[in-house]
Amino acid sequence: MQVFILICLSLIVLSAAASGLPGCDNQVAIGDRGVVVERATGSVVIVNSTSQEVLCRINGLGDLSHASMVFSRDEQFAYVFGRDGGLSKVDVLNGRLQKRIIQSGNAIGGAITQDGKIIAVSNYEPGGVRLFSAADLKAIASIPANTKQFPDGSKVVGLTDAPGNQLIFSLYNAGEIWQANLDDPAHPVITKYRQIGSLPYDALISPDGRYYMAGLFGEDGIAKLDLWYPEKGVQKILLDYGKGDRKLPVYKMPHLEGWAFANDFVFLPAMGRHQLLVVSKHGWQLAGRIQLLGQPVFAMARPDARQIWVNFAYPDNHWLQVIDTKSLTVVKKLQPGPGVMHMEFTPRGEHVWVSVRDKNQVKIYDTRTFQLLKTLSVEQPSGIFFTARAHQIGL
Amino acid sequence: MQVFILICLSLIVLSAAASGLPGCDNQVAIGDRGVVVERATGSVVIVNSTSQEVLCRINGLGDLSHASMVFSRDEQFAYVFGRDGGLSKVDVLNGRLQKRIIQSGNAIGGAITQDGKIIAVSNYEPGGVRLFSAADLKAIASIPANTKQFPDGSKVVGLTDAPGNQLIFSLYNAGEIWQANLDDPAHPVITKYRQIGSLPYDALISPDGRYYMAGLFGEDGIAKLDLWYPEKGVQKILLDYGKGDRKLPVYKMPHLEGWAFANDFVFLPAMGRHQLLVVSKHGWQLAGRIQLLGQPVFAMARPDARQIWVNFAYPDNHWLQVIDTKSLTVVKKLQPGPGVMHMEFTPRGEHVWVSVRDKNQVKIYDTRTFQLLKTLSVEQPSGIFFTARAHQIGL
Ligand code: DHE
Ligand code: DHE
Repeated sequence: MQVFILICLSLIVLSAAASGLPGCDNQVAIGDRGVVVERATGSVVIVNSTSQEVLCRINGLGDLSHASMVFSRDEQFAYVFGRDGGLSKVDVLNGRLQKRIIQSGNAIGGAITQDGKIIAVSNYEPGGVRLFSAADLKAIASIPANTKQFPDGSKVVGLTDAPGNQLIFSLYNAGEIWQANLDDPAHPVITKYRQIGSLPYDALISPDGRYYMAGLFGEDGIAKLDLWYPEKGVQKILLDYGKGDRKLPVYKMPHLEGWAFANDFVFLPAMGRHQLLVVSKHGWQLAGRIQLLGQPVFAMARPDARQIWVNFAYPDNHWLQVIDTKSLTVVKKLQPGPGVMHMEFTPRGEHVWVSVRDKNQVKIYDTRTFQLLKTLSVEQPSGIFFTARAHQIGL
Repeated sequence: MQVFILICLSLIVLSAAASGLPGCDNQVAIGDRGVVVERATGSVVIVNSTSQEVLCRINGLGDLSHASMVFSRDEQFAYVFGRDGGLSKVDVLNGRLQKRIIQSGNAIGGAITQDGKIIAVSNYEPGGVRLFSAADLKAIASIPANTKQFPDGSKVVGLTDAPGNQLIFSLYNAGEIWQANLDDPAHPVITKYRQIGSLPYDALISPDGRYYMAGLFGEDGIAKLDLWYPEKGVQKILLDYGKGDRKLPVYKMPHLEGWAFANDFVFLPAMGRHQLLVVSKHGWQLAGRIQLLGQPVFAMARPDARQIWVNFAYPDNHWLQVIDTKSLTVVKKLQPGPGVMHMEFTPRGEHVWVSVRDKNQVKIYDTRTFQLLKTLSVEQPSGIFFTARAHQIGL
């Protein structure tokens, strides 16, 4: 019997490796795997962050010119939200597309509930949030984002899970933040925060699930909701962070994913300015600005919060800058190549993976020595997502 | 070929399930698995936190009357530190003991380095720290804990990894904290902090890897090292937290694992007192005390830091109390049964698993409703460890 099993195992491994890549072996653990979006080809590759290699490629995910994803609690499945409203369930263990549906005309992101049972997608066309079963992608419920002023619905952005099996999201056109309790997912119970500010364009929840912050496009400022004290409502902070500045044309909206508390500060990319904003957690006042070489897109904290890595909008998107959160200064400038799209830290922070779209490369750096450790071939890479996200609130 | 593979797979699954338990299937993802120590029988069981069941049992791990463990970065392996100095490498995917060595006479805990390559074990007999290859448990180096006053060496406790591929640990007898850089693991470079206080008995690093805090047994107080400012040295805080109190005999030392920052406070179990200490992060002064029904052993924060769950030393070890970190009051008292040993939260905090030694049960509670969800049969359970720990600094 044992010999027979061994033969079986070998045959299975052989068949998995029949492509050019090593293959996605389903008999190893995948806690160190990740998924990289190939934005132009509607494909993703599965990578391994220990061996630092591309394992296999999965095609047929539609328009991934913008895409993000969340993971099932066992890490086996990535739920990919594509620009065309496609929702794809990718099997990270076996390296295959398990199911794909088109759930709307145009989508931007999504979330998985704390209990792992519901996938929520935030839509642009026709707007609103739709809920699906994580098991089979069957539709469970729909939350239209209609308001009096916007009876045809709002684009929804900044959708995230929150503790207590809740979802939180922002209505771009209507300027509202909605909180949905999913104890009975077929009948979400909604709490609405109105007039939170003009055009919230992205949002994120703090790693402990306490603060939900939405960046505003229509005015200077950030809308902040303290979920420990929802009765206080949404507060606008950093109201005049741009005062006196010459506002530049915005080449790309800054993303809020990856913001960090470090040293009692929160670091946020400024909109349309060459700055990283340093905000004091006590009173939520602007405590400083760090000058950058371009307009920041992502400002992401290393897991130990000692560094913030920043990438930039065109025409500076071949650079990376690293900020030291102790001295609040730029300590390093790197040039990975044209079209730096996204960064992802290994869970304990020793390495950072950087996607360099126009070079068809993912570059891996040591975050302490800034040494380039390895370059992987990936077709026009954008977002990089490690499976360890499965275990985090708000990712 | 495909049919053949299918037959193979079925046979493998069948053979795995030949015991009474469902078996540890190696063709599923294990991001939601965990390992529970069976303290009296030298065994561990592999559990699944989604299906909430015991999958398989692994025997032959020696004396586990005290045990802790760390995980490999892919989550496949648990390195179990037993009381008899045994170091066991358990394959969580396949449910088997891969390797076991006896590395000393008496050990208490260990760590895995940030790069995942080195397993470090802190020893009581003969003291010191030993380093092993995570791949094959081959000995790499030994760090004797000898000092002038204690030429025969010190017991080592509170061993943890720190960012930058470092280890930190405390010398119980000598009252020192040592920091080891493992860039060249065969030749660790040691920085020593002397006279940090009397008899450090346990320690932990904050989730961001910044603060190392060691509880003192020989005096009231906590030794705190800020790794962002090592030049400031070790500072003693909470020097007189017991002033005026009647000191009770200590039935069991409080453990520091699981401490939390919440609402700008740190929560620590008091030694020999029926109290949880509330420490302000600003100035590190005692900000309050929360009266408890017994001597706390573990005081563990739910991942969203909204609750602290506390278990107790004999004669109160059949209770659990839950503290609300917003109101700083006890909001719930539960009675899981005699011999409550340890608790572990699911990574996003919706459930807590509690080991009830004298009932041979692990109980699973909903942390929001406090409802008992399920009771599992486990032989004298103590420590519970989910695989998601693989991705965290200091766990
Ligand atoms: C609201 C929003 C989210 C959060 C999703 C959620 O709520 O789950 C998001 C996430 C993302 C995420 C997921 C971040 C994460 O860490 O989870 C990535 C990698 C990403 C890479 C890009 N985004 Fe994104 N992005 C927008 C909006 C958003 N992007 C835009 O409005 C914008 C400016 C215009 C657009 O083209 O739609 C835009 C352009 C980009 C890019 O140009 C980026 C850099 C590269 C690319 O290939 O599209 N966006
Ligand atoms: C120093 C130390 C650690 C940290 C390990 C490391 O550095 O990695 C530790 C960890 C632990 C951990 C791992 C905690 C974690 O979350 O990582 C557990 C579950 C644990 C359950 C117990 N410990 Fe523990 N424990 C001691 C010391 C320690 N225990 C003692 O000195 C004490 C009081 C006496 C003894 O018996 O050795 C003691 C009794 C107990 C128990 O009675 C507990 C509650 C149940 C049991 O079965 O032993 N100790």
